[in-house]
Amino acid sequence: MIIAKTVEEVRDAIRQVRRQGQRIGLVPTMGALHAGHYSLMGAAKADCPFVAVSIFVNPAQFGPNEDLAKYPRTLEADLAGCREHGVSLVFTPESAAMYAPDAATSIHVARLSEHLCGASRKGHFDGVCIVVAKLFNIVLPDKAYFGAKDYQQASVIGRMVRDLDMPLEIVVCPIIREADGLAMSSRNRYLSPQERQQALALIGSLHLADKLAKAGQRESKALIGAMRQHIATAAPLGQIDYIEVMDPDSLSPTDRLDGPVVIALAVKFSSARLIDNMRIDPTRLGG
Amino acid sequence: MIIAKTVEEVRDAIRQVRRQGQRIGLVPTMGALHAGHYSLMGAAKADCPFVAVSIFVNPAQFGPNEDLAKYPRTLEADLAGCREHGVSLVFTPESAAMYAPDAATSIHVARLSEHLCGASRKGHFDGVCIVVAKLFNIVLPDKAYFGAKDYQQASVIGRMVRDLDMPLEIVVCPIIREADGLAMSSRNRYLSPQERQQALALIGSLHLADKLAKAGQRESKALIGAMRQHIATAAPLGQIDYIEVMDPDSLSPTDRLDGPVVIALAVKFSSARLIDNMRIDPTRLGG
Repeated sequence: MIIAKTVEEVRDAIRQVRRQGQRIGLVPTMGALHAGHYSLMGAAKADCPFVAVSIFVNPAQFGPNEDLAKYPRTLEADLAGCREHGVSLVFTPESAAMYAPDAATSIHVARLSEHLCGASRKGHFDGVCIVVAKLFNIVLPDKAYFGAKDYQQASVIGRMVRDLDMPLEIVVCPIIREADGLAMSSRNRYLSPQERQQALALIGSLHLADKLAKAGQRESKALIGAMRQHIATAAPLGQIDYIEVMDPDSLSPTDRLDGPVVIALAVKFSSARLIDNMRIDPTRLGG
Repeated sequence: MIIAKTVEEVRDAIRQVRRQGQRIGLVPTMGALHAGHYSLMGAAKADCPFVAVSIFVNPAQFGPNEDLAKYPRTLEADLAGCREHGVSLVFTPESAAMYAPDAATSIHVARLSEHLCGASRKGHFDGVCIVVAKLFNIVLPDKAYFGAKDYQQASVIGRMVRDLDMPLEIVVCPIIREADGLAMSSRNRYLSPQERQQALALIGSLHLADKLAKAGQRESKALIGAMRQHIATAAPLGQIDYIEVMDPDSLSPTDRLDGPVVIALAVKFSSARLIDNMRIDPTRLGG
């Protein structure tokens, strides 16, 4: 497994891989790897003989009051995990190798990136876009793998790739959950035991919405109301940032479930802001 | 010569060229080709066995009151010229093939793109960046060629390529001029005979600044003042948009010529807005 710290080291390795005509899969991460990340590497490995993983806690996607400094860094364990999962190259740049002092270029995806997490995390998705665009241009993957837990992120990146004609395919992989249903996240480790218990309210509220939709409820407002009530009861330590029923492609809020929707939510605990989502297709429900 | 109208046709052709390991040069144009464009194709041909030219009047880089509708379109002559100059592929997309109705992605290069032409043409360089990024991702060139006449454009694109780690080299080629010194431009054909004559004031004022610098003048203000006076006298039909003495890399205005500078100017005539520039290196002057 190659461990590259500079753009040039990656380019040198990739040049040889390309020359051999091997397909390249990329899994961009911020490290603190868990089973969710490893499932992406598994999906990449199934498609591509050469799997590259980037581990970079990207300052551009953190707001001034966010957890950049304390974001978990577990590089040794991450490298061991990558090795175990058959990764060919890990790119772990320093911040200075990624951003020149006079860097001036920004990428913005209008509408898709401006509500939901984009509303409470100003500039977050611009920061995601810039680092992902750079990683794509450095690693030149045929496919790149993102988790559905960050649904908005995957949508924003998908739109950027389409709009800029970037020559790769974005693969969105299913959410990986703990045994009790909590969506895996590097930030789960911030939770106190009590918060960890209450965090189940996120998936609990999604299951509730799913059940109500299956029972024939088509009004987004009613679903959101029921979810709010569930969270208020099951997670008194949590503060709802948003709950949204939306079109799976445009991410526009939808009033009624006349076709497939994604319900996404964010809940803030004192130590961590958690997100989760679920796709619901009423045309495939009993109703 | 392949004439491609869709992204897929280009990708198919490029895939084969890449498989053969041939270097690809790209010359992005808006058509209405002249000797300036052909010099770029010549430079590309000297470096790369496969030269692609794009001909696309990019709506995204025109302002609402600009000359998009009347911009000269001379496709048959352009194709003949490309053939003559040994071009391998011409990409002439329709606007709909380039921009989806729900396109949402924008690229902005801060500072570099915000003054000079960026001040009087709001959004112009964002439009240039988006189309150039798309063309790079479609054609996947090893090198792309731009003329030094659009100095700010070349700088903005160079910064975008560096900041996004785009895997290609930007080559900036010298300004090509008419016999009497006017910088070649597709917009020169808009000029009335009287304006055409007065348009010589642009290069005339640059020569004057060069002469004054050679004679020891190091104050930008003095050079700009002399240029303004020259243009007022020699081009009474022209209205100066800007004259700037600037750092060649950052494009920041410089008060004194303590190193190499670029002097750039834009002058509006009733029928066309013209630009020109000159690099002056006082350390290599007689003084």
